[in-house]
Amino acid sequence: MVAEIRMQEESTRTKYLAERIKEANTTAIERILSVEPTLVDVDTALNVIPDMTPNTILHAGPPIDWEGMCDPMRRALRGALIFEGLADSDQKAGELLRANQIKLSPNHHHDAVGPMTGVISPSMPVIVTRDSTYGKTAYSTFNEGGGKALWFGAFGKETLQRLNWLKDVFGSVMKRVIAKTGGISIWNILAQGIQMGDECHNRHSASTNLFLKGIVEPLLSIDLSREVVMQAYKFIAGNSHFFLNITMTASKLAMDAAHHVRDSTVLTAMSRNGTEFGIRVSGLGDSWFVAPAPYLHDALYSPGYGPGEGAPDIGDSSIIETMGLGGFAIAAAPAMASFAGGGFEEAVNITKQMGLITLFENPTFRIPALDFKGTPTGVDIRRFLETGILPSINSAVVHKSSGAGQIGAGIAKAPYECFIEALKAFGKKYSLAA
Amino acid sequence: MVAEIRMQEESTRTKYLAERIKEANTTAIERILSVEPTLVDVDTALNVIPDMTPNTILHAGPPIDWEGMCDPMRRALRGALIFEGLADSDQKAGELLRANQIKLSPNHHHDAVGPMTGVISPSMPVIVTRDSTYGKTAYSTFNEGGGKALWFGAFGKETLQRLNWLKDVFGSVMKRVIAKTGGISIWNILAQGIQMGDECHNRHSASTNLFLKGIVEPLLSIDLSREVVMQAYKFIAGNSHFFLNITMTASKLAMDAAHHVRDSTVLTAMSRNGTEFGIRVSGLGDSWFVAPAPYLHDALYSPGYGPGEGAPDIGDSSIIETMGLGGFAIAAAPAMASFAGGGFEEAVNITKQMGLITLFENPTFRIPALDFKGTPTGVDIRRFLETGILPSINSAVVHKSSGAGQIGAGIAKAPYECFIEALKAFGKKYSLAA
Repeated sequence: MVAEIRMQEESTRTKYLAERIKEANTTAIERILSVEPTLVDVDTALNVIPDMTPNTILHAGPPIDWEGMCDPMRRALRGALIFEGLADSDQKAGELLRANQIKLSPNHHHDAVGPMTGVISPSMPVIVTRDSTYGKTAYSTFNEGGGKALWFGAFGKETLQRLNWLKDVFGSVMKRVIAKTGGISIWNILAQGIQMGDECHNRHSASTNLFLKGIVEPLLSIDLSREVVMQAYKFIAGNSHFFLNITMTASKLAMDAAHHVRDSTVLTAMSRNGTEFGIRVSGLGDSWFVAPAPYLHDALYSPGYGPGEGAPDIGDSSIIETMGLGGFAIAAAPAMASFAGGGFEEAVNITKQMGLITLFENPTFRIPALDFKGTPTGVDIRRFLETGILPSINSAVVHKSSGAGQIGAGIAKAPYECFIEALKAFGKKYSLAA
Repeated sequence: MVAEIRMQEESTRTKYLAERIKEANTTAIERILSVEPTLVDVDTALNVIPDMTPNTILHAGPPIDWEGMCDPMRRALRGALIFEGLADSDQKAGELLRANQIKLSPNHHHDAVGPMTGVISPSMPVIVTRDSTYGKTAYSTFNEGGGKALWFGAFGKETLQRLNWLKDVFGSVMKRVIAKTGGISIWNILAQGIQMGDECHNRHSASTNLFLKGIVEPLLSIDLSREVVMQAYKFIAGNSHFFLNITMTASKLAMDAAHHVRDSTVLTAMSRNGTEFGIRVSGLGDSWFVAPAPYLHDALYSPGYGPGEGAPDIGDSSIIETMGLGGFAIAAAPAMASFAGGGFEEAVNITKQMGLITLFENPTFRIPALDFKGTPTGVDIRRFLETGILPSINSAVVHKSSGAGQIGAGIAKAPYECFIEALKAFGKKYSLAA
């Protein structure tokens, strides 16, 4: 009799919670949909990023100390110290880092995001994106482009020269250009990009072209030498990933808007530091639920490289998938289908699978080849238990040890352990009977 | 016995011809595939277009006299006479035209093409596209953009001002820009455009952006005032159809390369003057096989307009479909699917149907949503008899009488009578029984 009453109470409580979760998730979705991210400014990281100090370097992924970091991340940090003048050699930089003389902190704890190693150091110019709905701001570096670049953990003379040019020339040019535009709506560009074959993570060709198209007039209307105008233009035009970091700031704002909704099971961040993969959940505060970072499967490698040479998955860029773009929208970018180890149908299947673990279709981003269905958005972590399906992330492979930078691209699956841990924590926090 | 022998002879001859046709069509296809159209120059129509005289105006479609012309075509011609200073009023222009004081001739007879009314007058600056394989050249005007424009048969102060600016400023700027680029490969841009949601007739958004991206550096590197640079840039950036006329010149070169192949049943031109729809066939010389121009079906109209107000189908732009793009490639541009009176599946169906009347899939233009199959190219006029399927053309609707210009867009079907006439002529020329 007592047991029966207890079971009834339990069942009532569970039912009550299910309703509360539903309501909370509806709120989270509404918040994602109402965010209006606008690229409004460019400034120096030290000036604008919260809790940035001359001695702080930010990195991708959940928190991690020097000892735990993978080789590409360590390289990027050493490169950043040299760039900042905090060390005058690779060796000196390594010593400072090993001796904990530098404060290391995750981008996500500073309203920031960065692709791959994601390193942001105090003097770097950063993109400033504001959400006019909730008034929050997010930051990222400018994308450096391919080849020997710090975001891939590569550095050398060429990389440092480029970083210095970004700091001394490009940043201030873009600050004036963005001011002249009055702000650039990021959803507007991405909505068109999705119509033009971008999935908005590994493919940003159309979005970058649309961005370029929008800034030429402001660029020409400010008082700059033709040489500088040309340099700035060529830098953007020469990098089809230029818009990636901008997309990341917008996705960060949308997911942060959905974060901290009591009772919500909506996934609000996925991020990797190259050692661990971490997720955050709206109703579970600022905890990270981590597991070892996975290796990419079905990756395509640059000539001369192959499986076994890549570091585990790395970067904050999976905030894009958390927002329902990238891997979730791969059916919009059949040119990326080869990463799916198949053709167009395989890409469509992935997007459809993501539809099984998400709560809504985003009407802002419509996939042409799926009869203009919206992108599957808002992962409900409970759906993993029901379906066994994990988020699919379009990613790049960076060499695990040689400093060669990017050696491939492919698809990563979020590790299931993160979801199990988050679900356990949810049960505990909301006193669910397991 | 005599009858039997005759039948055998007949059968042998038919078989022999079928083989000759097959061979001829293979040649035609090879010629289409080997054309390399490059935008190489801009010049004044009078300077470069064969048989252009100060008193000649070219128009879209097969040959037609003033009396037979539709209202939008007549308007465009009157506008052109005023632009040329050949008449000082609309009325005076009409008088000259009625009195046959102006030589009217089809673009196609002068290595030229023009969309909609397609009017080219002697002072207009024209795009010069050269095929490096066969050394031929094709010409078209610059696309004027939407609204009150001569290509839609609208003219007035604004239109004439724009035409004068194109002649006095834009033409010479672009001449220098194109020279600086060393020539722009048109297939290269269209191949990317097809990957980015363009079908390369009614949708040229991506192709225009790619063209823009390619000309900014040359534009900035020549000695021009910033104001002129800005005007030129804005003119292109403000018109997502800018690349249309360029695509038409390339398609014209490809189809002309396949023209005049003895025994070939490959369609080498489809064109409309707003009164008649005409086709040309490779093995049938320069004859046009004509039928009344069709009205568009499943068209979408601008607010305030509807069916019954449009003129019949008009323009040389269907050279794009003859080349296997536009309506034939509509599965690549699901954003155009609404013109198909349906969704994505309907667009895929149209492209698949076009596959049933064409001879090959063009490896240069691969449709992402069809697992990167090439665009269906090279209509064999015999296939119409076997399948009953007619070429599908993505087109625009222009007002039949008010001078309002474009009032809608939709799909036109080539009239079957043209194909019947061409097949009869083929039979006659090659002494086929039947």
